[in-house]
Amino acid sequence: MKLGRLNHVGVATPSIPDSVAFWREVMGATTVHDPFEMEEQGVRVCFVDTPNAQIELLEPLHAESPISAFLEKNPKGGQHHLCFEVPDIEVARAEFEGQGRRILGPTRIGAHGTPIFFVHPKDMGGILTEIMETPKA
Amino acid sequence: MKLGRLNHVGVATPSIPDSVAFWREVMGATTVHDPFEMEEQGVRVCFVDTPNAQIELLEPLHAESPISAFLEKNPKGGQHHLCFEVPDIEVARAEFEGQGRRILGPTRIGAHGTPIFFVHPKDMGGILTEIMETPKA
Repeated sequence: MKLGRLNHVGVATPSIPDSVAFWREVMGATTVHDPFEMEEQGVRVCFVDTPNAQIELLEPLHAESPISAFLEKNPKGGQHHLCFEVPDIEVARAEFEGQGRRILGPTRIGAHGTPIFFVHPKDMGGILTEIMETPKA
Repeated sequence: MKLGRLNHVGVATPSIPDSVAFWREVMGATTVHDPFEMEEQGVRVCFVDTPNAQIELLEPLHAESPISAFLEKNPKGGQHHLCFEVPDIEVARAEFEGQGRRILGPTRIGAHGTPIFFVHPKDMGGILTEIMETPKA
């Protein structure tokens, strides 16, 4: 596997509207995409563009959301995960599995509509890592 | 201020050699720059290139390093800060100051040789944020 693009930094937040205001008014973001819900993951999602990568704002939909647990420890939110692109999700998954790294659940369709999986931070230098198949151009 | 490039994600690590091995062998990084020390900040630094942004590995030089405190809470390391580029550091600093956001110390020369400052995570949605003047081409 060759290291691919840093597609996005996942950022947990208690409020997407408040975070969108912050990214627009304080950080100067000009392109903020429409928020949407990923019910199976228990999150509302909103992408903010920087010139070279995205910020993925994540707000919990309910108390059982994985983001709710993160916010209990970090009430203001903060950096949640890093997402890197790969050309082929099956090849990448087989590589991580072959190394005995703990993959969190099945490969599923992610927020960009392509297959993704997450790898446990304890096997990734403390970084919750999302691996995402690059969208076809 | 307009949101600039995500220059790098700062990642704390107890060992740059171990992290470099991880980024090369597990994540497939092909360009890893030579590590160097920033004595005033108490860190050893090593940049790993992705196609669109960098990972900045940070290892403490001693127990008083800010990275040492981070590693006490997160022994394996993990995401430490996000660094965004601005065209003019003085303009950016005046903006953050005008908003009453807590800037951590003076503007100083950062790891890329251009002026930088850090803004307190409690004023930045939980994200320790480095603001960096874009290197002149």
